[in-house]
Order: sequence, then C-alpha cells, then structure tokens
Amino acid sequence: MKAEIIAVGTELLVGQIVNTNARYLSEELNAIGVDVYYHTVVGDNLERMKAAFETAHRRSDLVVVTGGLGPTQDDVTKEALAAFTGRSLLIHEPSLKKIEHYFTSRGIVMTENNVRQAHTLEHALVLPNDNGMAIGVALVHESTRWLLLPGPPREMQTMFANYARAWIMEQMGETTSLYSTTLKFSGIGESSIETELLDLIENQSDPTIAPYAKEGEVALRISTKAADREQAERKTAPVVAEIRARLGDYLYAERDIPIEQAVVELLQRTNRSVSVAESCTGGLLAELITSIPGCSQVFAGGIVSYSAKAKIEQLDVHPETIRMHGTVSAETAESMAKGCLRRFGTDFAMAVTGVAGPGEIEGKPPGTVFIAVADRSGARVYDLRLSGDREIIRMRAAKAVLYRLWERLRSQSEQEC
Amino acid sequence: MKAEIIAVGTELLVGQIVNTNARYLSEELNAIGVDVYYHTVVGDNLERMKAAFETAHRRSDLVVVTGGLGPTQDDVTKEALAAFTGRSLLIHEPSLKKIEHYFTSRGIVMTENNVRQAHTLEHALVLPNDNGMAIGVALVHESTRWLLLPGPPREMQTMFANYARAWIMEQMGETTSLYSTTLKFSGIGESSIETELLDLIENQSDPTIAPYAKEGEVALRISTKAADREQAERKTAPVVAEIRARLGDYLYAERDIPIEQAVVELLQRTNRSVSVAESCTGGLLAELITSIPGCSQVFAGGIVSYSAKAKIEQLDVHPETIRMHGTVSAETAESMAKGCLRRFGTDFAMAVTGVAGPGEIEGKPPGTVFIAVADRSGARVYDLRLSGDREIIRMRAAKAVLYRLWERLRSQSEQEC
Repeated sequence: MKAEIIAVGTELLVGQIVNTNARYLSEELNAIGVDVYYHTVVGDNLERMKAAFETAHRRSDLVVVTGGLGPTQDDVTKEALAAFTGRSLLIHEPSLKKIEHYFTSRGIVMTENNVRQAHTLEHALVLPNDNGMAIGVALVHESTRWLLLPGPPREMQTMFANYARAWIMEQMGETTSLYSTTLKFSGIGESSIETELLDLIENQSDPTIAPYAKEGEVALRISTKAADREQAERKTAPVVAEIRARLGDYLYAERDIPIEQAVVELLQRTNRSVSVAESCTGGLLAELITSIPGCSQVFAGGIVSYSAKAKIEQLDVHPETIRMHGTVSAETAESMAKGCLRRFGTDFAMAVTGVAGPGEIEGKPPGTVFIAVADRSGARVYDLRLSGDREIIRMRAAKAVLYRLWERLRSQSEQEC
Repeated sequence: MKAEIIAVGTELLVGQIVNTNARYLSEELNAIGVDVYYHTVVGDNLERMKAAFETAHRRSDLVVVTGGLGPTQDDVTKEALAAFTGRSLLIHEPSLKKIEHYFTSRGIVMTENNVRQAHTLEHALVLPNDNGMAIGVALVHESTRWLLLPGPPREMQTMFANYARAWIMEQMGETTSLYSTTLKFSGIGESSIETELLDLIENQSDPTIAPYAKEGEVALRISTKAADREQAERKTAPVVAEIRARLGDYLYAERDIPIEQAVVELLQRTNRSVSVAESCTGGLLAELITSIPGCSQVFAGGIVSYSAKAKIEQLDVHPETIRMHGTVSAETAESMAKGCLRRFGTDFAMAVTGVAGPGEIEGKPPGTVFIAVADRSGARVYDLRLSGDREIIRMRAAKAVLYRLWERLRSQSEQEC
C-alpha cells in the first residue's frame, strides 16, 4: 500500500512550526508495512487543498490528512474533501452532543462555529477524538482510502493509535497484526551495533530489525506480523536471544525508554538513592532524571558546581586536587562524586566534569570529559573523548554516566540474586 | 512569487528525521516576501522525483529542493533535474579541485564517487558550499526558478544565507533588501501582546509586525524593505518606539536571544554573579543558563534540592518552614533563595519550588509554582499558576524566574545611571 501524508496549515508554510506529525505518521505507517512515498504541506486554502487532494488521489492508495478540523473559518479540510469527492457534509449528532456537554458542564456558552467540529462526510466512518473535540473521518473514495486527523499532535496520535491504525490494517486485508519489541542500548554506538549484528541485519526478513540512534542511546526495533502477541513472541524470541547474547552488556531495556528511566526504575526496585554533581553538563543530568515522574523516591538532588570555588565549597573537592590536576581531571571527577555522596547521604553519586566547548579549558580540547560513579565502597572514573558541538557533548556526557550507574546497579543486583 | 519547497530523502519518509529544512526555508522565504504554497517530501527515487518536479514546475515560480546532492548512488537530485529539464550534467572544475584538495591535504584517498559532489547543470549558476563539499545549483527553466541546496541543515542554511537569498531577490527584480528587527518579550503571553498591539497589527502594511511564541517568551519580528539598513531603521524606528512605549516592561532584547542569554549578558555587563536553587525544575534552570557559552564568568552553580531533606541540608531551609507551609510554598521558595545566596556567596540567587505534575504535592495541583529572587537586601517571591504538562510547566517556571531576575537587574542598572 502506497501512502501520502498531507499536512494542512499555513503556520507550517510560514515556518512557525515543524511538521512533526509527518514524522510520527511515517514511522507508524512504515511499522505496519505501509510505504510512505510523499509528504505534502498545503495552506488553509480550499482551492489549493483540492488540487493537492487531486494529486494525492492519482498517485496514492492511502492519503492521511492532518489539520484543518477545528472550529474556525480557516479550518476547511472537511469542506475540501467533501467538494473533491462530491459528498455532503453531515453533523454527527453523538459527537455534537459531546461537544455541547463539554461547554455546558463548564458553564461556557458554546459558539455556533463549534458545530463544525462534529462534521463528518456522507458514507464515512467517524473516528472519535479522545483528547479534544474535532472528530476524525475515514472513507474510501474510488480506489483511494482517506483519513482526516486533527492537527494537534496529542489529539492526532491518540486518534491514530486508538482508531485509525486498525482501520488501515482492515483496509489492507490484514488478519494479522504487527508486533514490535524495542531493545534499547547505551554505552555503544549505532555503527558498532550494526557491525556486531551485520549478519542478522543483512539476512533479516521476518522478523525485521531496524536500528535508530539518538545521542547516547541506540534503539533496535524487532517487528513481525502475527495472529496474536503470543505467536509474535515465539517468532521474535530467538532473534532477541541472539542479540542479547552478543550485546547484552549494553542492553538496558526491552522497551522504548531512555537510559535515565531505566536507572530510576532500577533504583526504585533495589530501593537505592542517588545524587549528582555536575560541571560541564550544567544541570542537564539532574534535569534528565527529574523528567521521569516518580523520580523523587530515589533522587535526592544535585549540585551544579560550575566554578572551581563551587567545587571546593559545595562538594569539598580539595583545592590541591584542582591545583595539581585541574578542574577537568579524573581526580576532580572522583572527588566531586565522593563529596556529593557524603553531602546527600545517598547510596550512589554521579559526577561529570569536562569541556563542552566551544573553547578549551586548561588546555584541554572540547569533548574531554571525566565521569565518575561513587558508592560507599569507593568511586570509579571513566575518561571520555566525545565529539560534537556543545549541546551534543553535554548530552553524551550525561547519558554516559547514567549508563555507568546502570551497569553498576545491574551487576550488584545480579550478585544479590 | 509563489514558492514550493521539496525535501528529498527516504529518511524523512520513514520518520527517521523531521523536515526542519522546510521550516527554516519557509521562514526565510516569507521574510523576503516570497509566498510558500507547498512543501513536498519525496524519496531518493529518480522517477518519483521527476514526477514531483513536474508538479512543482506547473504550480510554482520558485522551487527550492534540499537534499540528494551527496556522493552516493542514492543522491540523484541533480540527475533528476537534468532529466526533467533536458540539460546535461557537467563537472564544475574549480569545485572539483577544492574537493580533491580536501582529501589530499588530509592524506586520504578520494573515492571516485566524490566527483558527483562537483556536478552542476548546463547554463546553471554554481552556489559554493562553505560548510561542506556538495555544491548547490541555481537555474531558470522556462518560467520556473530552481535552487538545489544540500540536505545537512548547517550546509543548507549557510548556502542559502550567503548565496541563494541574493539570487532569489535578484530574480524578483528587487533593488531593495528586507531588514528585520526582532523584539523579545518575557513575563507576558502572546495573546496579551496581541491585545496591546491590536491596532498596530491590524493596520500594519510597512513595516510588518509578526508575533510568534515559545514557552515563556514571545518574539515580534518587525520587517521592512529598504535600500539600506539606515533607511530601514528610519522606517521601523517609530513602530519600535511605539511598541517599546506600550510593552517596555517586558521587552528584554531587541534581537532574537532567549531570556537566559539576556540575563547572562546583563550580569556580565554589571559584573554580578548568580546561583540557583531548584526543586520542580530539577536542573533545567541551571541547564538553560549553562547553555550560554561564557556563562562561567557570572554563574557560580546551583543546588537541585529535590527532597525536603536536601532543602534542609543543602540550602538551610528550616524544617519548621517546611512543616508549617510545605515544600511548595512562598516561604520555602524564599528560604531556598536566601540559603543559596549564602552558600554560593553570589550577588543574586534564584529559587523555584512547585508542582510539575502529573500528580499533586501536599494537596496542591500541578502548575502551583513559587519562584524567588534574592540579593543581599532580601528576597522577593512570586506566586505562579501555570498550565500545561510536566515539561511545559517546568520550562515556564524556569523562564519566569529568569524574567524576574532580568527585571531586577534592569531596574538596578537604571538606578545607577
């Protein structure tokens, strides 16, 4: 099945926002075996929208349109598809009732234009909006399937996941569903993973193995079509087992979570606590940890010691250590981690000191980073040589120390078993 | 002039990356008075690319194509345009020499496929790549102007700014250039700014006023066409003065910088230092400040006191304050700021404590946030009621306290004058 994604919205054409909806839908459609051949963006203009629909109709089996379903005069996606297919617009009464109820229950007067959000087309399927008011539409016109989804990403993604995906698979005549397992790695680069798994990746057919990388993390998505999850698991288990055998040291999760979440969960499970001491990451490490809801159970806090003085006064780094080795050194990283552990009284402490760039520090080039993980038995320091700009170096340094703590936690919890 | 932006790349169609090039180009083209009517994304496929070029040729005066100029077999954008326009591909010798020099100067053997990066088309203008190897191309075919730019954003943006923009303006027959001033506001929402400036925005023609918002910041771009910067400034000065008169309290910069940069620069100029005490922002505030190169002159460091214990032990908040008022309270925010000021010995300290969500804390709903700014004369506390999800609340809280420090710094530096 060949698909095209059309995003409607003048705000995209003036560069106000980026088309993240096309990225989400591309990933999801590819995952269920739909090939995306085109993305199109068109403004809130009835004539140009109809022309774009005509082009899409000619070249695609499935057209997914996002945006232009709201209450204002600008929102004309349903009108455009009605005009193009020669179908009437109808009010979907159950959806209108829900919209009216939303307003009355809040004591707000519903303006007339909100009725438009309950519009559907003749002989179309209504897709409920679980996160908003504008309903979606699915219909088949001649040989082309059409899906109209709302523009706000949260509404669009929920509607796609809860209703649209199943409709597409039904249209494809699928009696099987696609099941995916995501394996997440840290402490190893994408190219090394590909090298280690080259034979598996080159000979893949079912299940498929697709790698993709972020800063400091790599994901492998293992996908297969099956009648149910149990059958899918039987098919993917040998592949996952083989990957685990080769790369288990770096495999921190068998679902799509960032390394900071794996660390927080492992701390929660083992009832341990952590604190952080940061220099070049400047708060990023603490920010990653605290982006995980529920982290307060295990995260006491952190100290951003950006100046040498702060390292001495807030983390008890000995002035002599800094004088002898510099602020960017293995010795300072170790001392920061130990000072942090003492000050917060946590089970573990992580420390990062380095040169994020753009300039050198103490004659050391950008990318020179020392990280340390301390517990009551002592500290272990790692010397990193990172590449990238200021922002990338900071992110890679933060992910690297999280990976080292995860590694330590895992080896301890294995020993305890 | 009606424009279309075509991004070439299968990585976009499988959802691996987002089309940020289209956003950049849309913004830049709109700024010089070019209307962008369509964005298209097409894969690395010669036939589909030619079909997309045909469609674009029919409906657009200017087509800007990004991507597919590299050395590999996948990179066929120039071949596709050559086939579509019936022109030959030629080697641009000066560019080939530069590429060869790049390799020989590094002692690397140049593989044959790199010659492709020096390809141009018959009767085309070559656009140099100041950040990479693949050259760009500009040409006029029948009534349509074509620009081929590289895919990597850094290469594309530099080529556009240094060469392509001027070519487009020349093609438009412009003897004037577009000049823009960006005004940045914080502490006020986009809708309030629009309300305050409604008469100016509604009656605008030249200069134009375009607002756009990020979390905790709003930008207004004031643009005009003029023969030179001096003439442009004469035209925009009265508008800027009027906006300054109405909204000067919130206007933190007359160029496009984030509030944290305005704060760092004002601290540098007044030779003051700052430290931060964070709870719900969890390191984000420190991270924003340390994302500004050169901040180490004025930023001593920070304490992320995520637990009540850390607030007491690391920031000297009195246990009684927490027992009486809770960790999320004006009293705790004030005490955190004062403790931070004392511990770091800085001229200023900022503090944030609040509920980022998803759950309540101490019976207080997500969005309840207290921020404080302290100096040696005391602390001032602000009570915020923020909306949005966890991530948005954290960002808005961090930007709000930065704005309050900026406000304090400005009023002090005005008094000193």
